[in-house]
Amino acid sequence: MEKSELRDLSIEQIRHHIRSGAYSGDTMGVADGHVQANLVILPKEVAFDFLVFCQRNPKPCPLLDVTRPGSPVPELLAPGADLRTDIPRYRVFRRGELVDEPTDIRSYWRDDLVAFLLGCSATFDNALRNARVPLRFLDQDTIPPVYETNVQCRPVGPFHGPVVVTMRPIPGELVVKATQVSGRFPSAHGTPFHIGYPEQIGITDLARPRYGTHLPLRLSEVPMFWACGVTPQAVAMASRTEWMITHAPAHMFLSDRHYEQDAVV
Amino acid sequence: MEKSELRDLSIEQIRHHIRSGAYSGDTMGVADGHVQANLVILPKEVAFDFLVFCQRNPKPCPLLDVTRPGSPVPELLAPGADLRTDIPRYRVFRRGELVDEPTDIRSYWRDDLVAFLLGCSATFDNALRNARVPLRFLDQDTIPPVYETNVQCRPVGPFHGPVVVTMRPIPGELVVKATQVSGRFPSAHGTPFHIGYPEQIGITDLARPRYGTHLPLRLSEVPMFWACGVTPQAVAMASRTEWMITHAPAHMFLSDRHYEQDAVV
Repeated sequence: MEKSELRDLSIEQIRHHIRSGAYSGDTMGVADGHVQANLVILPKEVAFDFLVFCQRNPKPCPLLDVTRPGSPVPELLAPGADLRTDIPRYRVFRRGELVDEPTDIRSYWRDDLVAFLLGCSATFDNALRNARVPLRFLDQDTIPPVYETNVQCRPVGPFHGPVVVTMRPIPGELVVKATQVSGRFPSAHGTPFHIGYPEQIGITDLARPRYGTHLPLRLSEVPMFWACGVTPQAVAMASRTEWMITHAPAHMFLSDRHYEQDAVV
Repeated sequence: MEKSELRDLSIEQIRHHIRSGAYSGDTMGVADGHVQANLVILPKEVAFDFLVFCQRNPKPCPLLDVTRPGSPVPELLAPGADLRTDIPRYRVFRRGELVDEPTDIRSYWRDDLVAFLLGCSATFDNALRNARVPLRFLDQDTIPPVYETNVQCRPVGPFHGPVVVTMRPIPGELVVKATQVSGRFPSAHGTPFHIGYPEQIGITDLARPRYGTHLPLRLSEVPMFWACGVTPQAVAMASRTEWMITHAPAHMFLSDRHYEQDAVV
């Protein structure tokens, strides 16, 4: 199934096609206006430390929902959804290594698992577009480039690792506007993590993103960086986390919420 | 020691006088401009559930800091402080009953305790005053009236109970301004919980607050209600929580942070 076939469907219909396996592509530009979320699943024994990690690192890890241990239902974001099946593609990490990328994690599910949903910049992309801030990665139907920075998260318990960011090339005269618009959505990473000068956060080559598609900068553009919900995956690798399941980058959970419900102003 | 004697002192000096026991009064209007915080201390075994409770009830319980188990140091809000001594007065609850109101909790401290600091409306009172929104309880050097509502928090694990609110009488023409100004500080309860019509949230008699001082409404005033960090104390009572230590109402923790550092716009 192609992304374009999802265009006019309801959120329930889109999740149905993801659940059935008919759609397993990325969710960039999908479900217009809906809050998208990053996924992290961990055993309950480290869930407290991860919650505190999110609290101490709110820009990369803005917490939207936490499930009851053993329950795959995100009660706040989408009470009718099942996090074991409703994300197009998952990643399974063991001792910090990526060991599987399934489209369904029912076989991995256990009664002691807690799922965390974290905000995603795809949420404020809706607001940026409405404010007529051009987003080239959406025009080209690609995934925004993702980079690892040399800025470290505040460590908590077993969890440590670098902040990961997305980059959007923004016309210079719209940099302030993009800062203000994204700042309305702290639960979707909020204001930029960094503006311009990639080397100041340890990004030495914009042409080589960790994920996503390189977008060569035009002369009038400034690279703007926002913290990214892929950060926990970098944390799993850096911390050699015993066991973690996440979404695959750009393959997000699509919630019931409209992005304006989460605006602070 | 009188509150007025703290007026021109530094935050370290004020905390010194609280730590030594010289000052054990309320902190309303104290340490101008500093973020104030509510305290909740729980054993680690229920700390995860309480963290999720805060995440699900962000208006009464906006989480500012969480200590490492056994550590009384709030690393984010005031790395030089000690939460066992630096609050003017505490409350100790056992099975939901108030059993002690000490000025120091060193004798209660254990290696398995986790301390949570939650935002406080005293923080945005600074911004309201600067915006020339009159706050009569401060002019009269009293404590704002606090009421229990009939609105229930979202329950999580063993924690359930009503939302508790503070009330400020605001001139009708400043109600929108007060909403906007407080909304800049979601980490200090943010926008009002309710505006006018106390009976709609189960408050039948404004003249009988649970804590604080009754402020009779003037004809031009509207009662505005903000969620209050005393909510966990009502939760301890409703849930018959085995063991919880909190601050005493209006006797807050004074942090290093300036309130504008926590503004979202």
